[in-house]
Amino acid sequence: MKFTVAATALFLASASAFAPRTGVVNKVAAPSSSAINGFTSDIFEVTEVDFADTKETIVKGGRDLFPLLPKAFEGIKQVGVIGWGSQAPAQAQNMMDSLKEAGADTKVVIGLREGSSSFQEAKDVGFSEEEGTLGEMYDVIKNSDLVMLLISDAAQAKLYKEIFAAMKPGATLGLSHGFLLGYLDSIGEKFPEDMDVIAVCPKGMGPSVRRLYEQGKEVNGAGINSSFAVHQNVSGKATELALGWGVAVGSPFMFETSLRSEYCSDIYGERGILLGAVHGIVESLYRRYQRQGMTAEDAFLNSSESITGNITKIISTQGIKAVYDGLSDEDKKIFQTAYSASYKPAKEILQEIYDEVSSGNEIRTVIMHGDRLDRYPVGKIDGTNTWTVGEKVRADRDDENIPLNPFTAGVYVATMMAQIDVLLEEGHPYSEVVNESVIEAVDSLCPYMHYRGVAFMVDNCSFTAKTGSRKWAPRFDYILDQLAYTAVDNGVAVNEELISDFENHRVHQAVEECCKLRPPVDISLFAETSTKEIVIQ
Amino acid sequence: MKFTVAATALFLASASAFAPRTGVVNKVAAPSSSAINGFTSDIFEVTEVDFADTKETIVKGGRDLFPLLPKAFEGIKQVGVIGWGSQAPAQAQNMMDSLKEAGADTKVVIGLREGSSSFQEAKDVGFSEEEGTLGEMYDVIKNSDLVMLLISDAAQAKLYKEIFAAMKPGATLGLSHGFLLGYLDSIGEKFPEDMDVIAVCPKGMGPSVRRLYEQGKEVNGAGINSSFAVHQNVSGKATELALGWGVAVGSPFMFETSLRSEYCSDIYGERGILLGAVHGIVESLYRRYQRQGMTAEDAFLNSSESITGNITKIISTQGIKAVYDGLSDEDKKIFQTAYSASYKPAKEILQEIYDEVSSGNEIRTVIMHGDRLDRYPVGKIDGTNTWTVGEKVRADRDDENIPLNPFTAGVYVATMMAQIDVLLEEGHPYSEVVNESVIEAVDSLCPYMHYRGVAFMVDNCSFTAKTGSRKWAPRFDYILDQLAYTAVDNGVAVNEELISDFENHRVHQAVEECCKLRPPVDISLFAETSTKEIVIQ
Repeated sequence: MKFTVAATALFLASASAFAPRTGVVNKVAAPSSSAINGFTSDIFEVTEVDFADTKETIVKGGRDLFPLLPKAFEGIKQVGVIGWGSQAPAQAQNMMDSLKEAGADTKVVIGLREGSSSFQEAKDVGFSEEEGTLGEMYDVIKNSDLVMLLISDAAQAKLYKEIFAAMKPGATLGLSHGFLLGYLDSIGEKFPEDMDVIAVCPKGMGPSVRRLYEQGKEVNGAGINSSFAVHQNVSGKATELALGWGVAVGSPFMFETSLRSEYCSDIYGERGILLGAVHGIVESLYRRYQRQGMTAEDAFLNSSESITGNITKIISTQGIKAVYDGLSDEDKKIFQTAYSASYKPAKEILQEIYDEVSSGNEIRTVIMHGDRLDRYPVGKIDGTNTWTVGEKVRADRDDENIPLNPFTAGVYVATMMAQIDVLLEEGHPYSEVVNESVIEAVDSLCPYMHYRGVAFMVDNCSFTAKTGSRKWAPRFDYILDQLAYTAVDNGVAVNEELISDFENHRVHQAVEECCKLRPPVDISLFAETSTKEIVIQ
Repeated sequence: MKFTVAATALFLASASAFAPRTGVVNKVAAPSSSAINGFTSDIFEVTEVDFADTKETIVKGGRDLFPLLPKAFEGIKQVGVIGWGSQAPAQAQNMMDSLKEAGADTKVVIGLREGSSSFQEAKDVGFSEEEGTLGEMYDVIKNSDLVMLLISDAAQAKLYKEIFAAMKPGATLGLSHGFLLGYLDSIGEKFPEDMDVIAVCPKGMGPSVRRLYEQGKEVNGAGINSSFAVHQNVSGKATELALGWGVAVGSPFMFETSLRSEYCSDIYGERGILLGAVHGIVESLYRRYQRQGMTAEDAFLNSSESITGNITKIISTQGIKAVYDGLSDEDKKIFQTAYSASYKPAKEILQEIYDEVSSGNEIRTVIMHGDRLDRYPVGKIDGTNTWTVGEKVRADRDDENIPLNPFTAGVYVATMMAQIDVLLEEGHPYSEVVNESVIEAVDSLCPYMHYRGVAFMVDNCSFTAKTGSRKWAPRFDYILDQLAYTAVDNGVAVNEELISDFENHRVHQAVEECCKLRPPVDISLFAETSTKEIVIQ
């Protein structure tokens, strides 16, 4: 999921930890090209970082490296930035500013659909048809040596053939998200083989990418980190160009992934604990607590508010295990009961999500859903009883008195741990696992949900995320109600092995380490998101 | 869904109504071979029947046609019946008895996995290794001219390659369900091109197929109808063999479908109003009525009991529109409100199901789910509050005083009509549409659910049906709660056009006509299902 604030970005920058690179993702669709390759660079300095018992090589960015950009962009006379959504304005402006400061002769040109209303916005920030830095998208594609394809997932799926055909021989295709590979996998297609394909994926939404880049001129370390992937390297120069792109948009650190690993973990994560699972957990607990005699308001406080206003804040500052360690002995027992009963049912749904994503099914679902939109426009889900009560609870909120319900904590933490375990078992590197399962949840999404509610967030996120969370939230709800809570009510004993696995899990060290790292620049999440769509992809 | 009692079968027998044969199903996977072909027979008499403004040709069966069997089975020295689930024992015994009575020299041989515990059961009804009518499955396959593949969906998906390879040149593959084609579609494979492929799909579970065949010796018209499909006809004799098979297992009527049309409507139907949708509707209404102040028991009475004990009984005896026509003016308004608000949200999920099935996604989901079973065995869903209360309500039931809640009726009927409309829009023949959307629901599944509850039925049906209903029930629940009930609560006006479409829908005539046709043999549904698994496929 691409919704992240700089806290995430800066964690990923500083995280001294990456998993082995041998993980094979997507067993179903195309196992051969999903592993992360490892890389070297003749231009940028490569740094080794330790993470638990593994090592990972990353590249540090920074404005001091701008003089290296002309070499990294060698042969790239024109960069075509296609689209004007969330990422494109930020990356295009950052790249233009950086290349100018570096004295490179590479031109950055915006390409838009004929008649697009975004022409004016691009002009407002300095691109212009007169100077040849703004034009019709296929004209721009035709003349670019690096085509940064930053249009929506749906548009990529619709237009990819025309776009590939329009690109000139030797040009590089650049992405900021692995969705297009996922789509091609799902229909048994491939990128043209004679083309370099790279991705630089900033771990924050577009406005943050721009704002932190500007702050980076004054404040050391401000900027949004990126993962990068070299998917096809025909020219042999693809890695240098990807790293140059990351430096040019202002990433303080770049870590390696593969395009397939990126889209699998990204699409999986937003269906899981980031959005879909948290929605289902809240709905199931909200009902359960009312059945046990709570008022609707108290049930909301003990489910939704407890997660977004308490549990995730502890995780954000002290790590996952701190939620448990801070409980009283009596509450620890309740946590254990809830955790024991919920871990396996939650993991069952999470493994199903992973399989659906890695097999291509989930992306086909998104595409087919898009094809039905004219007949079935997406309705809002924020009007049900749960979220109406939630609005009232938020209005009356007393920040000091939000309960930390130990049963809720057990269910939520079990789901988070199950999500982590599925990703680790599927071979994803720790950087991705922690980002997609912990940091994004507790530092980005849950704070926003606390501010405005889970359902509102679903209603206002990207089409791919929305389709997925609407599909999977009810599955988490039902399976918890059907298997986990019935087990608790039937007095099934605590599974000591599961609790021990949780207490001794090696992810804790990683997460705790990360929690020490806070962004040097204060990011106001809500200033930039409360009035527009939340998620960039 | 293969769960049907003879009421269904006899309807389908007598239904004077079939839609045009030009429907193209499965737009995504393989549109070319899904249309229904039409047929002629040199052996069996073909009858034309009228249905509304369309005509369909069907074949009447009956014991008087047994003398034609040797001709239909010409060149078939051995029929291998593979498996011993629900259909195999019934079809094998019926076929053996019929061919014997006809004086045909075709041998019926049962093929089972080495070491299968079913050997004894087959011996108990007269098959034996000594007489060469029982053996290891591949030995039987190798020596059979017609291979009736009646093993489970999962086993078909796992073993199809070995089975195809074992079949002798010129042998015919016979199925009783289109699942295997769905599976091959989903992985881009095909049946071997040099092979006849036919299907005869009895519209009732195995025990009924056997029992009504036996009753058919005494009572005219007893027997289970079948749909049949000729998928590949290399020899030119496939249609005659399919019709002979239908006659031999005792079908009083046979109507044509295509293998693809069969699996699409079947897998779609059980995810919709037959099982998945009714579960989701009940859960959503059960919550809603409690929020409005009803006790849990009253909420269950007004949701689940109202559907299974009242609404569907009216549909079964008087047709769909009678539910509405019988309401008071005041209740009609409530029905209209619920219908208007529910039709489109329900149809949105139903169209999604159809697209998932016809694209192959849904079958891949079932297969992947099967692959996870060792790690994630399927848990029971019958223990939640809803169904615990339901058990109590059933125990205290007063048959004369089950409410007909007009809101519940509006939601349920809207979903049934939406299911019908999706199938008609996708080009399915009326015979399939009415069977998969109305008759199976009101004559088979809802009576069973009334007897034992919806969740129990889900827990005890086939893996394919169970996987689907667990996946889709929560989606119906959520969308009704999120879009339909919120619209009602916000006072959105009745959509008069939708109500008018409902009142004037041409499906009513078909269904009402069918309701006049009742089986001449009293079928005790529960005697044969209360102690064993319910659904055969």
